Amino acid sequence: MNALAQLGMVSEHPSDNQISSAPFSSEDDRKDYFVEKDGMKFAGTHLLVDLWDARNLDDPEQIDRTLCEAAVTAGATILHSHFHHFTPNGGVSGVVVLAESHISIHTWPERNFAAVDIFMCGACDPHLAIPVMQRLFQAGRIEVDEQRRGRVQL
Amino acid sequence: MNALAQLGMVSEHPSDNQISSAPFSSEDDRKDYFVEKDGMKFAGTHLLVDLWDARNLDDPEQIDRTLCEAAVTAGATILHSHFHHFTPNGGVSGVVVLAESHISIHTWPERNFAAVDIFMCGACDPHLAIPVMQRLFQAGRIEVDEQRRGRVQL
Repeated sequence: MNALAQLGMVSEHPSDNQISSAPFSSEDDRKDYFVEKDGMKFAGTHLLVDLWDARNLDDPEQIDRTLCEAAVTAGATILHSHFHHFTPNGGVSGVVVLAESHISIHTWPERNFAAVDIFMCGACDPHLAIPVMQRLFQAGRIEVDEQRRGRVQL
Repeated sequence: MNALAQLGMVSEHPSDNQISSAPFSSEDDRKDYFVEKDGMKFAGTHLLVDLWDARNLDDPEQIDRTLCEAAVTAGATILHSHFHHFTPNGGVSGVVVLAESHISIHTWPERNFAAVDIFMCGACDPHLAIPVMQRLFQAGRIEVDEQRRGRVQL
C-alpha cells in the first residue's frame, strides 16, 4: 500500500467501462477503419511530444481544459478525461480518451518537463493539438517523434 | 455531433479530476523523480507495442481486467481505468492511469490488430506487462519500440 492508496485514491474496482449499444450493421461490419495517407495504410498517427523548459505544469484542471481544447482542435471527439495531481512535487498525470484514440500527459514541474502522447486515427490531425498545448505550457523546446502505428501493405 | 455523441457517450463536462491532498513536505520538495538507469537519466520508459494476428480484441471488460493485471505485474499502482466499446467493428479503446504513468490500448478486431502503449516511471518494469497481455491476446507477432522519455545529461 503506497501513499496514494492511503489517501484513498486507489480503488479496488477502478473500472469505468462505457459500452455503446448501437445496433449492429452487417453492411458496416466489413468497413476498414485503417487510414490511407502518403501511400501508406496504417491504424493511426502517434505523436510522442516532449516539452522542455515548460510552465504551468502543476494545475490539473487547467491542463484538462487545455488538452480537451487541443483534442477538439485536432478534429477529435472527447469521450472521457481523467487527471491526477501528485504531491509533493505537483506533477500531473492524465488522459483524454477520444473516439479517435487518446491524448495523455505526465508532468515533472521540478524539471519543467512534460511528456505528452497524442494518438489519433481517422481524419484527425494530431499535429494541430500541439500549438494549443504550447499556449499554456510555453515550452522553450519541443521534441516531436511521429510513429505510424499498425502499418500494412497497400 | 457524431454517432457516439448521439448515444450519449460524449459528456459536455467530461472532467473527472482527482486531487490528492497530502501535506506538502519541504524536504521532499527537492526530490528528483527522474530515473537513473544504464548510465542514463530520464523521466520514464515508454513502450509502443503493436500486436498482430491477435484474438479477444472486442471485450472491454476482459481487456480492462487484463491491462490492470499487467500494470500490477509490472509493479505499478492503478489509479483509474476507463474503456469504451465501439460499434459496429467491436473495437475497444481504453486507458489505465497509473501512479507511475499509464497503459493505453486501441483495438481493430477486423484487422486482428491492437496498438498498446505502456509508459512507466519509477521502479516499474513495463516489459513485464507484455506477457500478461499476451495470455489474453495470443498475438502471432508483437513489435515493441522502446523510448526513454525526457533524457537528460547525468
